[in-house]
Amino acid sequence: MAANPQFLKYVDDHQDDYIKRLSDAVAIASVSGNLSYVKDVEAMGEYLVQQLTALGATVEKRGIGKHTLEGKEVDLPPVIIGQVGNDPKKKTLLVYGHYDVQPALKEDGWLYPPFELTPDPKGSGKLYGRGATDDKGPVLGWINVLEAHKNLGIELPVNLKMCFEGMEENGSVNLDKFIESEKDKFFSGVDCMCISDNYWLDTKTPCLTYGLRGINYYEIKINGPDRDLHSGVFGGTVHEPMTDLIALMSKLVTPTGEILIPGVKEMIAPLTDDEKAKFEAIHFSMSDIHGAVGGDVTISNDTVKTLMGRMRNPSLSLHGIEGAFSAPGSKTVIPCQVKGKFSIRLVPNLTVAGVTEHVVKYVKEEFAKLGSKNTCDVYLTHGGEPWIADPNHYSYRAAHKATEAVYGQTPDYTREGGSIPVTLDFANILNLNVLLLPVGRGDDGAHSTNEKIDTSNYINGTKLLGSYMYELAAISKD
Amino acid sequence: MAANPQFLKYVDDHQDDYIKRLSDAVAIASVSGNLSYVKDVEAMGEYLVQQLTALGATVEKRGIGKHTLEGKEVDLPPVIIGQVGNDPKKKTLLVYGHYDVQPALKEDGWLYPPFELTPDPKGSGKLYGRGATDDKGPVLGWINVLEAHKNLGIELPVNLKMCFEGMEENGSVNLDKFIESEKDKFFSGVDCMCISDNYWLDTKTPCLTYGLRGINYYEIKINGPDRDLHSGVFGGTVHEPMTDLIALMSKLVTPTGEILIPGVKEMIAPLTDDEKAKFEAIHFSMSDIHGAVGGDVTISNDTVKTLMGRMRNPSLSLHGIEGAFSAPGSKTVIPCQVKGKFSIRLVPNLTVAGVTEHVVKYVKEEFAKLGSKNTCDVYLTHGGEPWIADPNHYSYRAAHKATEAVYGQTPDYTREGGSIPVTLDFANILNLNVLLLPVGRGDDGAHSTNEKIDTSNYINGTKLLGSYMYELAAISKD
Repeated sequence: MAANPQFLKYVDDHQDDYIKRLSDAVAIASVSGNLSYVKDVEAMGEYLVQQLTALGATVEKRGIGKHTLEGKEVDLPPVIIGQVGNDPKKKTLLVYGHYDVQPALKEDGWLYPPFELTPDPKGSGKLYGRGATDDKGPVLGWINVLEAHKNLGIELPVNLKMCFEGMEENGSVNLDKFIESEKDKFFSGVDCMCISDNYWLDTKTPCLTYGLRGINYYEIKINGPDRDLHSGVFGGTVHEPMTDLIALMSKLVTPTGEILIPGVKEMIAPLTDDEKAKFEAIHFSMSDIHGAVGGDVTISNDTVKTLMGRMRNPSLSLHGIEGAFSAPGSKTVIPCQVKGKFSIRLVPNLTVAGVTEHVVKYVKEEFAKLGSKNTCDVYLTHGGEPWIADPNHYSYRAAHKATEAVYGQTPDYTREGGSIPVTLDFANILNLNVLLLPVGRGDDGAHSTNEKIDTSNYINGTKLLGSYMYELAAISKD
Repeated sequence: MAANPQFLKYVDDHQDDYIKRLSDAVAIASVSGNLSYVKDVEAMGEYLVQQLTALGATVEKRGIGKHTLEGKEVDLPPVIIGQVGNDPKKKTLLVYGHYDVQPALKEDGWLYPPFELTPDPKGSGKLYGRGATDDKGPVLGWINVLEAHKNLGIELPVNLKMCFEGMEENGSVNLDKFIESEKDKFFSGVDCMCISDNYWLDTKTPCLTYGLRGINYYEIKINGPDRDLHSGVFGGTVHEPMTDLIALMSKLVTPTGEILIPGVKEMIAPLTDDEKAKFEAIHFSMSDIHGAVGGDVTISNDTVKTLMGRMRNPSLSLHGIEGAFSAPGSKTVIPCQVKGKFSIRLVPNLTVAGVTEHVVKYVKEEFAKLGSKNTCDVYLTHGGEPWIADPNHYSYRAAHKATEAVYGQTPDYTREGGSIPVTLDFANILNLNVLLLPVGRGDDGAHSTNEKIDTSNYINGTKLLGSYMYELAAISKD
């Protein structure tokens, strides 16, 4: 069911109001990772409560405990939960967003003050400001939809439950516990979920995102002498921890990206024809990635292989070494203890525990082969499972139709190479299909200087979220 | 010819005076690497000039140019040259020492104020103070010898030329130019040279040191993307510079210390029977090195192999990586440019240029095998040749006899695993046999906190230097 034409017209007619709303929100510097901004994060939560209440939602601000910020114990930003409609005949949609932002300082290289939403003076339609696309624009998209319906006197086609947190940029502390505790209360009766907190792959093609890679981060620790040694005096007489570590790190992955740990590749889920077709259909050219990395250093020049390298295959990156010499210049030290750091991006059916078992076994076996008297330890420092949703679920089909209606384009079906841990929490705890429905573009610069959202993405995004509701309401669950 | 017994008795009778002299010298905080101590370094040079002049030496203080210290241009500490005797019938001995010291602050962990010579209150005879052993004690040893002879009215058995610098701890800047410029002037007519600026291998056995390893320091630089990348987004799609670098670094040396660069091992001079015998005779037990490194992490448990690993074989140490993640914690970055740092200790007949040719060729060939689109550069950042003297030279034979006379022990013949660049400058520019004749013990802690010299080493060292003169005077050059 296409969106109510009155709604679409209302959005077009109220663009300036919507931009004003985004401007008001960006002006609240809700940086969650910094003690100086605690009050601003609180103010941003309160802003959402007021907006939602004014639009007829039932709203609650829920404390979820305390945490330590820069050595001081403070309240965690509250989770804002809201609800509009409770009609058992309608589907119930849960949406999630976050109202906190990354830090931003003008002197970091921002063109304009980061907490003043600034339209590109050249008229490109870009709206610069911290949080414009991550994640205030998308959150306000839902509020814009509510406002349009309220002012038009039209009922929402679905029951809407909203969950907005203020700690996403700082680890979503305790959100998993909150979801768990509200599983059979606020979150009961939800049919499916939509999160708008990622981006199009490029700058032109809307997409639906149905997968995220997980990550296992490891350290290999080699202990040797009990103090750093002078390589003149001791070079050639002792087993050097760096030599052992480099030998081990060189056995993890080849320069062409092949993971050498036995058992890991074997865990990759077989590629289905449907998946393959979805990768082949993605709008992507090698120049996109060459531009993004500043040159042709891609392992493959095949677009599908490259996309699958990012989205559906595991990868292993060597990040660095702690304890060795790392400054400019020359130092002739033999470090006594070194820690090599690497991570493996996980995809179905790799699991945190399964991969760790293979890694630990392999590294210990390889260390034993070195014939070193040093000691070796290898351990997971943190792990996050991969996530994949059924892209043929009715929620995705609804979003597909809504995208075609708003953009006149078939959406790409993408997966993210990185991780968005809250997605897994919602999907697993509530046992829900989660749709990642991005509003912004691939070049929005979330977390960077000069974060922006394009006016067209913000406005069409509002239409998209509303249209998705209508399609969702109408679509068969089968 | 044994030393004049009057001289030996004089030394015994004047121990307190000699300790007072060392105390006066240690009290002058002649730290050459620090702008705040420029006046102290100058004062220490002036102290030597006054002492030597009072003892009848012809002395000159020679400026050798300027350098920049903490951003300010200052005069280099002067070189003090002095001469006693000019009898064409006698041999002429050149001695070198330095009057500057390493920095030292009480709060670094010194038991006593570092610039107040402090006898161990437990009565062990240890004299704590910065410069006590490196190198004021040995320099004053020569002055003690001069004083004894002057006061006893005895002529020195050799002509003595002395060269004391004030920049050894800060790179001996311009000393090579000074030696070159004085080659046919002050330094003309020198028969052989003695430097007392290293240490016994252990705490009990006097030694003569006839070799030093050189060092070539290298960087391997890998350039890939033009900016650091997120491993979630780009892991699995691009050639990662760290993977290439770790692969290359793993191909340089094995965990048991074998250098894998073809051509390097082949350059090692064949072991002679005489050399082998000298290594076998060294007083050394594996517990010495296990104690020094804090455990049994030695490649070999054979003392001769261990000593040769340190003294006569090249070694390759991997020091670290610049540009990669090196802090505690986890960071999921793909660094865009990384520099791997390693050094090779050189022994005869390895040369700076010859080894570099092999290293560059090998690393480039190995990089080509990786199939990476990144770029690789490998280059020498600094190089120093190895040095070896003829340990059967008459100067060594004289020192051998002097050691037996003073200590009643046959000296070990050792080489240092590290480098003392001035040794090469003197040996090569003046084409001299250089004898390294240590005064202090292996545990003196030069450059460390709580540097000390044992009273017995300082006093016996004074006798040793004097006795060496007598033996040198008498010995046949054949």
